[in-house]
Amino acid sequence: MPNPESAILVIGDEILSGRTKDKNIGWLAEELTALGISLKEARVIADDTNTIIQTVRTLSASYDYVFTSGGIGPTHDDITTEAVAAAFDVPVIRHPEAMARLTRHYKDTDIDFNEARQKMANIPEGAELIDNPVSAAPGYRIKNVHVMAGVPSILQAMFKGLAPTLRGGIKPTRITVQCAIGEGTIAGILADVSDQFEGVSIGSYPWFKPGQFGTAVVLTGLEIADVEAAAALVTQKVEAAGYAARRDADNSFIGGSGINEPA
Amino acid sequence: MPNPESAILVIGDEILSGRTKDKNIGWLAEELTALGISLKEARVIADDTNTIIQTVRTLSASYDYVFTSGGIGPTHDDITTEAVAAAFDVPVIRHPEAMARLTRHYKDTDIDFNEARQKMANIPEGAELIDNPVSAAPGYRIKNVHVMAGVPSILQAMFKGLAPTLRGGIKPTRITVQCAIGEGTIAGILADVSDQFEGVSIGSYPWFKPGQFGTAVVLTGLEIADVEAAAALVTQKVEAAGYAARRDADNSFIGGSGINEPA
Repeated sequence: MPNPESAILVIGDEILSGRTKDKNIGWLAEELTALGISLKEARVIADDTNTIIQTVRTLSASYDYVFTSGGIGPTHDDITTEAVAAAFDVPVIRHPEAMARLTRHYKDTDIDFNEARQKMANIPEGAELIDNPVSAAPGYRIKNVHVMAGVPSILQAMFKGLAPTLRGGIKPTRITVQCAIGEGTIAGILADVSDQFEGVSIGSYPWFKPGQFGTAVVLTGLEIADVEAAAALVTQKVEAAGYAARRDADNSFIGGSGINEPA
Repeated sequence: MPNPESAILVIGDEILSGRTKDKNIGWLAEELTALGISLKEARVIADDTNTIIQTVRTLSASYDYVFTSGGIGPTHDDITTEAVAAAFDVPVIRHPEAMARLTRHYKDTDIDFNEARQKMANIPEGAELIDNPVSAAPGYRIKNVHVMAGVPSILQAMFKGLAPTLRGGIKPTRITVQCAIGEGTIAGILADVSDQFEGVSIGSYPWFKPGQFGTAVVLTGLEIADVEAAAALVTQKVEAAGYAARRDADNSFIGGSGINEPA
């Protein structure tokens, strides 16, 4: 059975205005990859009801799993739940178990469990709750769509609880070979190795720092032996061309600044 | 004339695997907002020819401007240019001016300007070059699609050069009012103010730190006077309810950790 395929949908004007920097795509991408769930695309959209409805329908129909973040809080701009319910043509109900959890959560505080906070117990009919161990207000799963909070600490706690219920796949093997060679010089070698190993995807990520440059060659595939063999061949060919190559010990080295050098 | 609308398209397996954390969406979002160009969506897709073709066509037809990042380097996995050309049914040509720039760039180095590096002079026919002051290999504009490098420092330099050629709009006014009040308590006030100011979008972003919590209320709109009036009304109502509210001096405060507390 092939690995399940998934999409992430980040809902929030604050990301599109640049005011808030999304951290959920990168975090979820790593978690999904580790579960053997292939992430095929991620989208960021506005807090707009029709846009949410259309995008949820499209992604739900296209992938095994969809994971959303944002828009399930207590205020007027939190419209995700109404839109997701509309996407599946079901009403929103005041969910008894969600109400019970929120009532317990606020009981021993001096915070008023007012109508706005009760709105966080509104859930599309037929959805299953996703636990929120941080602040009680639950996420939920409806069909193949998992609706979670936008605050990273809450989203992460929700996903950790949810992960065991997902069908995983084969975790890809990823080997990084660091090469003291420019990307343009190694290109021929990589094209050659790539041709020989069909199931291995080979990415190359150049990096630069003062007085130094190199290329991180990242080999990924579902068959360990193939990825190993392709990595060995890259190493051998780079060394034969007169450049240093070393395999990263932990296979998770990120080239260059340690943050982000795609290309 | 309404503000132009735009989309960002990040192309790269390394983002979807979680290996590389995207920084381009957040950076471009801020720049576009400052230019009065409304960012309506952002997508991250894989290095897959058909996916790139379909997505470029969809976004190009839907928005005034599209900005892509990634996949224009010298290696076999850099397939963006072939796919973008196919999206517009034009051939890829070896662009004379791009060749001239790359030839100059490599002339005084000991780096071989080999066939792989020459590939970076491949440009869809009819496209205009976008300058790359960092590493010479240009981006390009074809129709309303702006194709840029994935490496953030290069993308940023390309965009800075490109920005003056874009039709800007009205830069939104954004005022942040910090309120020492929970999001659920302020919800009624915000719904009320939101109803009174149709052209002002009001977002609320709760934040928590040990022993403290609050809500950043972010008011955004194209009419300065309306945004000012709505911010004043929020402040007045929060204070009347017995909580502290203060307007952020620089209007760009990001609540909580300083990184990312959407919700």
